[in-house]
Amino acid sequence: MTLFDVSPRVRDLHGRLTAFMDAHIYPNEAEFHRQVNEGNRWEHVQLIEDLKPKAQAEGLWNLFLPPSSDPDGKYGGGLTNLEYARLCEVMGQVWWAPEVFNCNAPDTGNMEVLARYGTPEQKAQWLTPLLNGEIRSAFSMTEPEVASSDATNIQASIVRDGDEYVINGRKWWTSGAGDPRCTISIFMGKTDPSAERHLQQSMILVPMDTPGVTTERMMTVFGYDDAPHGHAEMTFENVRVPASNMLLGEGRGFEIAQGRLGPGRIHHCMRLIGQAERALGLMIERSSQRVAFGKPLAGHQHVREAIAHSRMEIDQARLLTLQAAHMMDTVGNKEARGQIAAIKVVAPNVALKVIDRAIQVFGGAGVSQDTPLAMMYAQARTLRLADGPDIVHTETVAKEELRRHGVSMRRG
Amino acid sequence: MTLFDVSPRVRDLHGRLTAFMDAHIYPNEAEFHRQVNEGNRWEHVQLIEDLKPKAQAEGLWNLFLPPSSDPDGKYGGGLTNLEYARLCEVMGQVWWAPEVFNCNAPDTGNMEVLARYGTPEQKAQWLTPLLNGEIRSAFSMTEPEVASSDATNIQASIVRDGDEYVINGRKWWTSGAGDPRCTISIFMGKTDPSAERHLQQSMILVPMDTPGVTTERMMTVFGYDDAPHGHAEMTFENVRVPASNMLLGEGRGFEIAQGRLGPGRIHHCMRLIGQAERALGLMIERSSQRVAFGKPLAGHQHVREAIAHSRMEIDQARLLTLQAAHMMDTVGNKEARGQIAAIKVVAPNVALKVIDRAIQVFGGAGVSQDTPLAMMYAQARTLRLADGPDIVHTETVAKEELRRHGVSMRRG
Amino acid sequence: MTLFDVSPRVRDLHGRLTAFMDAHIYPNEAEFHRQVNEGNRWEHVQLIEDLKPKAQAEGLWNLFLPPSSDPDGKYGGGLTNLEYARLCEVMGQVWWAPEVFNCNAPDTGNMEVLARYGTPEQKAQWLTPLLNGEIRSAFSMTEPEVASSDATNIQASIVRDGDEYVINGRKWWTSGAGDPRCTISIFMGKTDPSAERHLQQSMILVPMDTPGVTTERMMTVFGYDDAPHGHAEMTFENVRVPASNMLLGEGRGFEIAQGRLGPGRIHHCMRLIGQAERALGLMIERSSQRVAFGKPLAGHQHVREAIAHSRMEIDQARLLTLQAAHMMDTVGNKEARGQIAAIKVVAPNVALKVIDRAIQVFGGAGVSQDTPLAMMYAQARTLRLADGPDIVHTETVAKEELRRHGVSMRRG
Amino acid sequence: MTLFDVSPRVRDLHGRLTAFMDAHIYPNEAEFHRQVNEGNRWEHVQLIEDLKPKAQAEGLWNLFLPPSSDPDGKYGGGLTNLEYARLCEVMGQVWWAPEVFNCNAPDTGNMEVLARYGTPEQKAQWLTPLLNGEIRSAFSMTEPEVASSDATNIQASIVRDGDEYVINGRKWWTSGAGDPRCTISIFMGKTDPSAERHLQQSMILVPMDTPGVTTERMMTVFGYDDAPHGHAEMTFENVRVPASNMLLGEGRGFEIAQGRLGPGRIHHCMRLIGQAERALGLMIERSSQRVAFGKPLAGHQHVREAIAHSRMEIDQARLLTLQAAHMMDTVGNKEARGQIAAIKVVAPNVALKVIDRAIQVFGGAGVSQDTPLAMMYAQARTLRLADGPDIVHTETVAKEELRRHGVSMRRG
Repeated sequence: MTLFDVSPRVRDLHGRLTAFMDAHIYPNEAEFHRQVNEGNRWEHVQLIEDLKPKAQAEGLWNLFLPPSSDPDGKYGGGLTNLEYARLCEVMGQVWWAPEVFNCNAPDTGNMEVLARYGTPEQKAQWLTPLLNGEIRSAFSMTEPEVASSDATNIQASIVRDGDEYVINGRKWWTSGAGDPRCTISIFMGKTDPSAERHLQQSMILVPMDTPGVTTERMMTVFGYDDAPHGHAEMTFENVRVPASNMLLGEGRGFEIAQGRLGPGRIHHCMRLIGQAERALGLMIERSSQRVAFGKPLAGHQHVREAIAHSRMEIDQARLLTLQAAHMMDTVGNKEARGQIAAIKVVAPNVALKVIDRAIQVFGGAGVSQDTPLAMMYAQARTLRLADGPDIVHTETVAKEELRRHGVSMRRG
Repeated sequence: MTLFDVSPRVRDLHGRLTAFMDAHIYPNEAEFHRQVNEGNRWEHVQLIEDLKPKAQAEGLWNLFLPPSSDPDGKYGGGLTNLEYARLCEVMGQVWWAPEVFNCNAPDTGNMEVLARYGTPEQKAQWLTPLLNGEIRSAFSMTEPEVASSDATNIQASIVRDGDEYVINGRKWWTSGAGDPRCTISIFMGKTDPSAERHLQQSMILVPMDTPGVTTERMMTVFGYDDAPHGHAEMTFENVRVPASNMLLGEGRGFEIAQGRLGPGRIHHCMRLIGQAERALGLMIERSSQRVAFGKPLAGHQHVREAIAHSRMEIDQARLLTLQAAHMMDTVGNKEARGQIAAIKVVAPNVALKVIDRAIQVFGGAGVSQDTPLAMMYAQARTLRLADGPDIVHTETVAKEELRRHGVSMRRG
Repeated sequence: MTLFDVSPRVRDLHGRLTAFMDAHIYPNEAEFHRQVNEGNRWEHVQLIEDLKPKAQAEGLWNLFLPPSSDPDGKYGGGLTNLEYARLCEVMGQVWWAPEVFNCNAPDTGNMEVLARYGTPEQKAQWLTPLLNGEIRSAFSMTEPEVASSDATNIQASIVRDGDEYVINGRKWWTSGAGDPRCTISIFMGKTDPSAERHLQQSMILVPMDTPGVTTERMMTVFGYDDAPHGHAEMTFENVRVPASNMLLGEGRGFEIAQGRLGPGRIHHCMRLIGQAERALGLMIERSSQRVAFGKPLAGHQHVREAIAHSRMEIDQARLLTLQAAHMMDTVGNKEARGQIAAIKVVAPNVALKVIDRAIQVFGGAGVSQDTPLAMMYAQARTLRLADGPDIVHTETVAKEELRRHGVSMRRG
Repeated sequence: MTLFDVSPRVRDLHGRLTAFMDAHIYPNEAEFHRQVNEGNRWEHVQLIEDLKPKAQAEGLWNLFLPPSSDPDGKYGGGLTNLEYARLCEVMGQVWWAPEVFNCNAPDTGNMEVLARYGTPEQKAQWLTPLLNGEIRSAFSMTEPEVASSDATNIQASIVRDGDEYVINGRKWWTSGAGDPRCTISIFMGKTDPSAERHLQQSMILVPMDTPGVTTERMMTVFGYDDAPHGHAEMTFENVRVPASNMLLGEGRGFEIAQGRLGPGRIHHCMRLIGQAERALGLMIERSSQRVAFGKPLAGHQHVREAIAHSRMEIDQARLLTLQAAHMMDTVGNKEARGQIAAIKVVAPNVALKVIDRAIQVFGGAGVSQDTPLAMMYAQARTLRLADGPDIVHTETVAKEELRRHGVSMRRG
C-alpha cells in the first residue's frame, strides 16, 4: 500500500496501535467473551475499562475526530479521513476493540454531531463525558414499520409543547442501547410532516432515563446479541425533553444525517477491510497447519485460489475506500458522494466473501465460537443492510455516473 | 413438478402433511422458541411432545424408513427415496418440524443403521423406542483434531478388552446430544489402526450415561445453540461397553457409513430445498407488502430478479435431487455416487443464495429473531461443511465424470 | 438421465442419431469449414446436400414436427416435445448438423407455422419443398431501430392495396437469408397501428425474389459471418405480395408468434445443452492429454472443479428444459410459460459458463479456429439476446411466480 | 482518480492525447475497418500511416519508453510506469490506436528489450527503425505443442554452428506477423536442454525474410483475424542467422522475458481498463437513448445496476493497476511480482464483465460489427490466456501471500 504517502505522525500511530493490538487485544479475545458470558451479559465489561487508560496513555484515544472538530488535537484527533482510515482498519480487526480507543460506533458519529452542531451546554453535558469514555450513547433512527432504505419514511414524531418537545415513536436497531452506561440517544423524527420532504425531520437529544423511554427487547443478529453493546427495540411514549435538546434546529435532521454519514461509512468500510484482512490471516494460518488428504490445506489448489482471490479483492476494496476518504478530504463529502456509495456496496460484500472462504477452510470451527469468523460474518452481513441496503447505494453510484455523462434519470 | 409421477399414496401423504404443517407447525413457530427460551434451553420441548401423537394419528410417522427396512410399512415407512423426498421437502420448511414426524437427523440415519445392521437385541433395546419417538440418539464421528473432510483421519480408539470394548476419544458436532432424552450414540472409531485404510474403523453403540462419557460444551453455529437439540463437544475416557454393542462387526464402520450417507444426503438436500422454497415464499410476501420509494418492493426490478433467480435455482436443485433419489432407487447408491455428491454441493449453495436474498428483502428483520431466515442461513451454511466440505464432493463429481470418459485421475 | 422414461421408438432414434453423428458429422467438421472457405462463402455447402439423403434413409428427418402437425408421422415427425428434446440435444452438438436432418432454425419454426396455419395453397407452395429440404426459409422480425426486447415495438408496415399487400420496413438478424436456396421469408409487421396493442401485427409470406426486397449486408457475430446461413440486414421497399400470402389473418401475428416460440425455445435450449455437453467432453479430453507443471491438466484441482461444476450445471439445465418440454406436452404452452421463460435464461448462461471453462483449458486453441469452442461461445452469447434478452424472460419468471402467490405486479 | 498526484507534464500529455483521440481516432474507427476490408486485409493501413506524423508532431510518440531506456526523453519517453499507465488507458480505448503513437504490442516490448540488451549494431539495425515507426516486429514464443502456461516447456531449438545459429521450431500466436512491414522477430528457444531449468532458453533476432521462416496460417480469435496485425502460426526450419543476433547471451532468455513482462502487463491492463471505460461509456450512451417498455433503458433498474457495478469494478481495477505500476517504479519488478500477477487476473476479468454488460444493453448490435464491443470482448478474453492463464497468476498471488505470512508451499 505504498500508493498513499503516510505522514510520520500516522506511521508512528499505526505502529503503536498495532503493538497495542498485539499486546492487549488479540490475547484477550477469549477473556472478553468469558466476562460477558459469566455476567448477566448486559453489564459493562471490565476488561474494556481496564484497557482504556492504557490506550489513553499511548495516545491512542479519540483518533477518529476530524481536524474540524478537534483543530488542536487536544482530544486526540486531528487526523484526515485518509489518515484515520488506516488506523481504523487496524482497530476493526476485533469487534470490541474500537471502544478501547473510544472510536466505536455509534459514539463516534454522535460525538462528531455534538462537536459540530452542539451548543456549549450540550457539549458540556454530553460531549465531554463521551470524549472521556465515561458514558456511551445511542442513535435512534431506524423504525420497524417502514423501509429504512428510504429515510424519508421515518414516522416518529417530535412535537413542540411549550419549552419541551414531546416524542413518540417506535425504533429498533438502536445499537449500543444495551450497555448500562449508555445514557444519551440522538433521536430522529418528524417535527413537520407538512414541510418539504427533506425538511420534515429533526434530531434531538433524549436521555435514556427519561420517562416514556422503554427498551422493549434486544434484537439478535443471526444468533448473536452483541452484548453488552446490543441492538434495542425501543418505544418512546410521550417522552418529554427540554426544547434546548434540539440539535441545530427543527427540520435539519437530514442535514445532520448527511454530514454524519460520510465519515461513518469510511469507518465501517475500513473496519470491514480490517476484518477481511484478519479472516485472510486466519485462513492462511489454518491452511498451513491443518492437513487433509496427505498435505497441508494450502497444498490444495482451491485453498490457494481462495487466498489469492481474497488478497486481490481486499486490496481493491481498500484502495477504493482510501480513495473515497481522500476525496472527502480534498473535494468534500458532496462531491465524493458516488465514491462513498461505492465503498458502502463493495466493502461489506468483499468482507463477506473473504470471511466465508475462511469459514470453509476452518470447517466446523469456522461457524462456531472457536473462531471470530461467524460473528464477523454476521456483522458484515448486517452492513449490507444497515445505513441503507446495497441497492440504494448502487442506485446512487449509477445516478452519479449517469449525471457525469450528462444523463438525468429518476429512480424507475 | 409434473415430471415425476407421484403415486396416489404419496399424493395423499403430501396433502395430509401440508395440512398438518399449516395447522400445527407454522402457527407454533414462535411458541417453540418461547418454550426453549423460557426453560433452561436444554429440556425437551413440550410442544413437540404434544404434536407427536397428532402426527402419528395422521399416519405421518417414520415416513423416512425405506422399503428394505420396513417392508410391510408397519413402522410407517416403505416409501422409495424419490417418494419420501417430496415429503421431506415439506417437513424441512421449519427446522424443528421433522422431529414431530420422527423424521429428524441424526435419528433417521441411526434408525436405518439399526434396522439394517442391528441384532435383534440391539433393535429391541434401541430401535423400538426410537421408532416410537420415546428416546433420541446421537452420532459421534467428527473430531476436532483432524480434518473431517477425510474420514480416514478419525483417531478415536475402540479396543477389545474381554467382553467389552474400551473407547477413548474426543468428538465434536455430536448433534442431538443436548436433548436430555438422547440416551444412545453411535460412535465411530478405530478398532485396528494397522488394517487396510477402509477397514480400520468400526461403529459401536454407546449409551450416553456410560461412565467416562462427558459433554464438555455445546457448540454454537453463528451464535445459535440449536437448543434443545444442540451440537456437543464430548470426551470419551475409558468408556466401557459390552462387546455386543458393536455394529455389524469390527472394521465395518466405513461400510455402514457409506450405506447411511446416501439417504441422509437426499434428506438434507430436500430439507434445504424446503427451506429455500420457504425463504422464497417469505420474500414474495414481504415484497408485496412493504413499500419503498413509493411502490411495493416487488415493484422494484431487482427484487423481481431476486424472485425469478430463486425460482430458477430452486427448481433446478430440486430436479437434480429428485433425480439422485430416483437413481438410488433404481441403480443403487454406488452407481448414483456422482449424483449424490452433486446435490450435496448444489442444494446448500442454492439454499444460501435464496435465503440471503430473502434476508436482503427483509432488511434488519431478516437477520433478527423476527424471521426464521438467519437461523436457516446458519444451518444451510453448516451444510456446506458437515458431512464433507463442498470441495470433497466436487472432487467426487469430477472423478466420476472423468471415469465416465475413461480418464482415471488421482487427487492431486 | 433415468428420470424420464423414454419410449422404445425414441431410444432407437437416439441410438441411430448418435451413430450418424459419429459416422458423418464429427468427422466432417473441418470439411464443412473448408468447403465454405474455399467457395465464395455464400453458396450452399455440398457436404450438407450429400448427407441429407443419408439422414432421410436413416429415418432421421423432420423429427421436430409435433404430433399435431404430423399426426401420422408421414413427414418423419410425431414426437412429443419431451421426446424430440433428447434428439435435439444430440444434433445441437455441431452447429450445422441440424440442417442435415432438416431440423434447423428458422426452418423448423417456419414449417410449424405453415403446417399449423397455412392454407392448402401455401402448404403446397412452401411447406412441401421445405419438408423435402429443397428450399430454405427466413424469418424477418427484428428491426434495427427499435428494442427487440419488446415485440410490440415493431414498426414495419403491411398495408392492404386491392389484392395485394404493400410491405415497407427495415429488418436485421434475418437468419438464414444468406443461403441462396432461401426463397421465402415470413415477415412480421403492422397491419393496423391503431388496433389494440396485441392485434396490430400480422405475419405474411414474402418470396425473397420479390422486387423491393434487398439484402443490405450480412451481420457478423463476434467476427463470424455464419456463412452460408448468415444473418442479413434487409430492406423492404414497396414490396408487393398477393393478399393470399397473409398467414391466418390480419392482426394475428402475435398469436402466431406465441405458438411458435415455445417449441423454438425448447429446441434452442436443448441444442445449447448439447453444445455445453460437447464443450465438457472436449475439456475432459484435453485435460487428460495436455501436461502442465508436470502432470496432466486434470491433475490440477481447478481443472477438476471446472469439470465438476460443468457437470452439475448441465444436468440441472437439462432437467429444467426437459421439465418445460414435458409441461408443454401435458398442460400446454400457456401454463408452461414460466418454465419456458426460465430455460431461456438458464440454458444460454450455463452453456456460456461451460464453453468458457473449456476455452480456458484449451488456451490459445480455445479461441481459435482449431476448436469449435469460440464459435459455440459466439452463438450461445447471441442467445442471451435473440428472442428477447435475459431480463425480459427473467421478468416473466418473476411475474408468474408472483401470480402463483396471488401478487399482481406490473413491470416497474 | 485524484489519489495519485500527476505531474504537469503528464497532465499536459493526457490532455493532448485525449484531444488527439477525439480528433483523429474515434472519428476514423469505421474508416479503419473499411480500409482493411477493401484491401486484401494483410496490407498496412494507410490511415495509420497518415496519423503517425500527426502524433509525432504532437509529441505523442514512444511515450512507453521508460526513463532507463530513454533517459533524456530524446525518443519521446522517459515517463514512469505510473505516469505512462494513465496515457496507456486512453490509447487503449481503440484497439488500433496504440500503433498511431508507436506504443503497440509487441513492438513496445521488443523495443524495450533492444534498448536494454541490444548491442550498438542491433540497435542501429532494428531499434532505430522501430522507434521511428518504419518497421514492425514480432515476438515468437508460444508453441502449439506445449502448455504455454509453463514457459519452461518451450521446445524450439537454437543450435550454434560456427558463426551462426540454426533455429528449428513451430510457433503460434506470433502477433503482428501479419503486417508486411513486420521484418524482425525476437525468437525464444532452447540453446542448452541440459542446463538448469531457467538457463536453457535464449532469445535471438530472426529477420522475417530469412530462408526457412514460413507463415503457415493466420489464427482467428473468435471470428476475428485482427488484420493486418494478425497472429501467425509459423515454422522455422533450419533457419540460419548470424551468431551476433543472440540477445544478451546464451541461456539468458528467461532473464529477458522476466524484465519484459512487468511493463507489458501494466500496458495490457491499462488498455483493458481503457476498453472497459469505453464500453461503459457506450452502455450509458445507449441506455439513455434506446427506449423499451415505455422508458429509456437507463430507466430500468437492472441497467442502472449494470452501470453502477461497472463503475465500481473499473475503479477498483484501475487503482490496483496503478498501485502495481507505482510499486514497479519504487520497489522494482521483483518486489511487485504479486501485484503484477494480481492485475493480470483482475483487469481482463473486469473488462470482460463490463463489455459483456454493454453487449447485453446493445442487443444484437452489441455482438455485431456495428459496435467495437464484440471485438473488444474477443481481445479481452484472449488476455485471460495470453502471457499465462488466470490460474498461473492466481498461484503467484497465493504464493506471494503465503510467503508474506512465512508459509512456503510448492505448487500441489
